[in-house]
Amino acid sequence: MTRIGYLGPAGTFSEEAAILYAAGRKIEIVGCPSLEDIFSDVAGGRLDEGVVPVENSTEGAVGAVLDLLAGPYQLCVRGEIFLPVRQTLMARRGLRLEQVERVLSHYQALAQCRGFLRRKLPAALLEECASTAVAAGRVAAGAGPWAALGPARAGRKYGLQEIAPNANDYPDNVTRFWILGREPLPVKPEQSYKTSIVFGLGHRPGALYTILREFAERGINLTRIESRPAKKNLGEYLFFIDLIGGQEQPVVRQALRQVDSITLGLKILGYYPVKD
Amino acid sequence: MTRIGYLGPAGTFSEEAAILYAAGRKIEIVGCPSLEDIFSDVAGGRLDEGVVPVENSTEGAVGAVLDLLAGPYQLCVRGEIFLPVRQTLMARRGLRLEQVERVLSHYQALAQCRGFLRRKLPAALLEECASTAVAAGRVAAGAGPWAALGPARAGRKYGLQEIAPNANDYPDNVTRFWILGREPLPVKPEQSYKTSIVFGLGHRPGALYTILREFAERGINLTRIESRPAKKNLGEYLFFIDLIGGQEQPVVRQALRQVDSITLGLKILGYYPVKD
Repeated sequence: MTRIGYLGPAGTFSEEAAILYAAGRKIEIVGCPSLEDIFSDVAGGRLDEGVVPVENSTEGAVGAVLDLLAGPYQLCVRGEIFLPVRQTLMARRGLRLEQVERVLSHYQALAQCRGFLRRKLPAALLEECASTAVAAGRVAAGAGPWAALGPARAGRKYGLQEIAPNANDYPDNVTRFWILGREPLPVKPEQSYKTSIVFGLGHRPGALYTILREFAERGINLTRIESRPAKKNLGEYLFFIDLIGGQEQPVVRQALRQVDSITLGLKILGYYPVKD
Repeated sequence: MTRIGYLGPAGTFSEEAAILYAAGRKIEIVGCPSLEDIFSDVAGGRLDEGVVPVENSTEGAVGAVLDLLAGPYQLCVRGEIFLPVRQTLMARRGLRLEQVERVLSHYQALAQCRGFLRRKLPAALLEECASTAVAAGRVAAGAGPWAALGPARAGRKYGLQEIAPNANDYPDNVTRFWILGREPLPVKPEQSYKTSIVFGLGHRPGALYTILREFAERGINLTRIESRPAKKNLGEYLFFIDLIGGQEQPVVRQALRQVDSITLGLKILGYYPVKD
């Protein structure tokens, strides 16, 4: 049976993404203690695949995952999953919204509900936890007037009651996940693909413009550009680009060869079917 | 006396940046409870200026600050400060590194020390706090084998002892801060300037390329491009760009007029002296 890892513990949005991916197939989902464990377990063969969050429509890129993708692990992106994310405020039975003195959750979840918290609970203390599931567990175990933000599933798991079912500031809150594996997917001719790459740029003026020209002049559409610090010096960056097109298209191969010759350490992260 | 706000409580790296900025001048520094309070207090005249973190060389952009800059507040960036950031692991007297069971700190500080923590304290629980100073205070007040990551100043303030003085993974760890005010600085003719802008882009192919061309063809050097989600739909982004040049240069004004005509909601965040 295929084994796929996600960032545990059970009850997180990452588990939901893994369940969605595994639905109807013979896949065992495995909670991992950290994102790096997912990468090293897939690379080392202890897992077949991993599912990791890449970006959220409210809070943006997941820096830790981008850094791992740019690093020494030689994994391939094989697919993407879009998970609608509804943050629910949950507490022990009997607690009303206006009584909440402390809200626990993951950094990303608190950030997705910043406006809600300021409006409804301006005096509450916000406490960051390692995951939304950990937050739900701590609220269930604690005795104070505390509430957790996270998926309703995590609340049910810990016997919590919903006190605000829709706490995210933007209704179309979506997280994008990538499926990682060791080998690229076999290419199907009738399928449309996205390709994801990362590269470094020196301090040359107009360097990014030169790269984008290679795609623009070939009519290749970019769906995302994300920068991350190169970590050595402030002002040096890595760029992550997603483009429409796969390795089977000569124009994409040609553009990537050109980009390879003018960037530092181009890494093709993978190509995967476009979701409609 | 000029009053400048920073993200409190006292003891954080933000306070250090404010102290650095105020050094030798008649400036009172004021700890604020949140980043948004800094923006609204400067806009409302209760503070003259604010100092806010924009990016870190290891962990990248500070999303919450970029979102506030793109929002309705009409503030101007008037200057930048580069603060070397050394994370120190600190605990109550007598605790040795190998005895630490829990490490408390701000999300960014934990992220800057990820490799150190995995190597030296692989079994320790990591707990995120609202700031490095809050973490130091909790370690000082707690009775367990806990340690805080943060500036050595925060440790001294709470009577903690250094147990690992240099815990960040990258030695040249630097945070960049911006000084915000209500009015732009008066332009001095002999001074070189940087200009910072933010704009939205539709889903048109090659849209970012078209923008970058306006700068590249005029020989204007970009020092940073950062994307943030537009929050409404995944796949729509705002772009933050820093460029070398000020409003007094006709070529910069011309490029910005062009960019304004092809982007959504161009906002000039400010221009400020280039640091050597």
